[in-house]
Amino acid sequence: MAGIRDVAKEAGVGVGTVSRFLNDSGYVSEEARTKIEDAMKKLDYTPNELARNLYHKKTGIIAVLVPNVSNPFFAEFVDCVESELYNAGFKMMLCNTEKESNAELEYLDMLNRHIVDGVITGVHSLKAEEYRRIHKPIVALDRYLGEEIPVVAVNHKEGGRLAAETLIENGCKKILHFIGSTRVESPYHERHYEFERIMKENNIRTICYELEWNRLDAQYYKEAVKDVMSQNIDFDGVFGVDRLAIECMNEVIRRHKKVPKDVKFVAYDGTYITEMVEPELTAIVQPIGGLAKESARLICKLINGKMYKDKNIILNVELKKRKTTSV
Amino acid sequence: MAGIRDVAKEAGVGVGTVSRFLNDSGYVSEEARTKIEDAMKKLDYTPNELARNLYHKKTGIIAVLVPNVSNPFFAEFVDCVESELYNAGFKMMLCNTEKESNAELEYLDMLNRHIVDGVITGVHSLKAEEYRRIHKPIVALDRYLGEEIPVVAVNHKEGGRLAAETLIENGCKKILHFIGSTRVESPYHERHYEFERIMKENNIRTICYELEWNRLDAQYYKEAVKDVMSQNIDFDGVFGVDRLAIECMNEVIRRHKKVPKDVKFVAYDGTYITEMVEPELTAIVQPIGGLAKESARLICKLINGKMYKDKNIILNVELKKRKTTSV
Repeated sequence: MAGIRDVAKEAGVGVGTVSRFLNDSGYVSEEARTKIEDAMKKLDYTPNELARNLYHKKTGIIAVLVPNVSNPFFAEFVDCVESELYNAGFKMMLCNTEKESNAELEYLDMLNRHIVDGVITGVHSLKAEEYRRIHKPIVALDRYLGEEIPVVAVNHKEGGRLAAETLIENGCKKILHFIGSTRVESPYHERHYEFERIMKENNIRTICYELEWNRLDAQYYKEAVKDVMSQNIDFDGVFGVDRLAIECMNEVIRRHKKVPKDVKFVAYDGTYITEMVEPELTAIVQPIGGLAKESARLICKLINGKMYKDKNIILNVELKKRKTTSV
Repeated sequence: MAGIRDVAKEAGVGVGTVSRFLNDSGYVSEEARTKIEDAMKKLDYTPNELARNLYHKKTGIIAVLVPNVSNPFFAEFVDCVESELYNAGFKMMLCNTEKESNAELEYLDMLNRHIVDGVITGVHSLKAEEYRRIHKPIVALDRYLGEEIPVVAVNHKEGGRLAAETLIENGCKKILHFIGSTRVESPYHERHYEFERIMKENNIRTICYELEWNRLDAQYYKEAVKDVMSQNIDFDGVFGVDRLAIECMNEVIRRHKKVPKDVKFVAYDGTYITEMVEPELTAIVQPIGGLAKESARLICKLINGKMYKDKNIILNVELKKRKTTSV
């Protein structure tokens, strides 16, 4: 295989000139450029990217950590963020942390070991301190990891308000409210607080069902719904993440109740699966493409040396009225 | 930041000894090892992984190419293959090729440029010749890319047979059959051939609807179903991939027909979404975890220097009878 020396010899220029050309690191005359390009073509020379990266101290790789990419929210996020990073000239390394408890720490360590230039993290098994001690480009999706790490999230409080108002307008009196585990700090709890506050203000009863931490698999959602149903709770409205709302709705339909006549549903996240079931679910929709775009934009800026403190990017949610509510 | 020279000085050994120690590339005495480890700890020295990779000519990264990770089949595959690769000591670089037509070629090129050690590809926009000229570790998921590239797939012929027999047993007489684009060579066409063969043998009418090539997005599936429905075709049985079967079933239900009484459905792939709708779909289930395991195992073997010719790994599918068929 041809090396940099062969290229220099063929082009009739010095090795240093070829090196400057390849690394875009100093003056190379137009004439020399043409000669080097011709020589590279003639010798079928491919620069060793590893060596170039070593020189630039950049790898062009960004790690994206999610609990589980088979969850439709994260699947859509990963899909979009990969496109955004690709367009910005970066490759994406993906890690599902749910199955491997040490993976999160290992990927953070890869920042130190110059394998990745930055990390976008949508997980939070580690204590925030672990993140704080790393002074490298990290962007958090919907997680608080300390004041040095910027957060991209939606306005969950607004999401909680829209969901509450919709169920109230629909005349619901006893509402089953699935809430995420409160074990970790995250902006997403705000939707639950706001939802509960509004319900209390309107004297409407809610039954809260707190989910286990870090369980996002289909099996668990089915179990949780079975567990709720076995308690013979009477409810006429449901608020929960897409898959829980769907599982719950299916169970309600199997028990010969009518949707939305007997029970109304508002799903949270509004991924494509809410449009894949019959009836289609009314949902608070997170702009996943927008979250991906902002996460990619921020990590690129951090890699280019910009620093942020207490930077939060908050996007708007949207209420999509479909067929599981009547008004 | 401390460098290899500082470590050598602190440990009182030569730079070459530290290099041999770090790269595990020659004799280093026990005494020197202890001194180097102590010095590294004292100086908080982290070896530059890029430099080590350059030495070993390995990056520990495998690229996985899929058309679209938000498609549930690929989401589950990526989820599983990432775990398998992680356990084998590799990181996964993920690329969705649907949005970027040049990405496939670019990732193959990364094999040549020493950025990744291997590629697992579930896409096929490129001509097989592009793959054949690369003599590096590549494994194809459900695609024929030439005799030098091993294929991991399921027994689609058996899948087609099981689907056909199920719909025949259920008394279907006019069957709507969604078929994948025949524009590319893939093992998956065999299910359609076998399905059609058996139907012909049994004098059962099928209406074939060929899908556009490389369209796996939710929007397209909805459009395809609308297109079929607008043609006022009369059918009592449907065979198609999960999302098409689901969209079609929802439309049938909206038109006040009963499932499975009036129309029977058999879905292909059997991802979690077939269990997320009501009624749950009878499906031919591909063992996605098994496909991931075999793909990971093969790519690791290829990276370790093993060569294959005409190697096909064919896994069994499973018929899951659920609620969209009666017998």
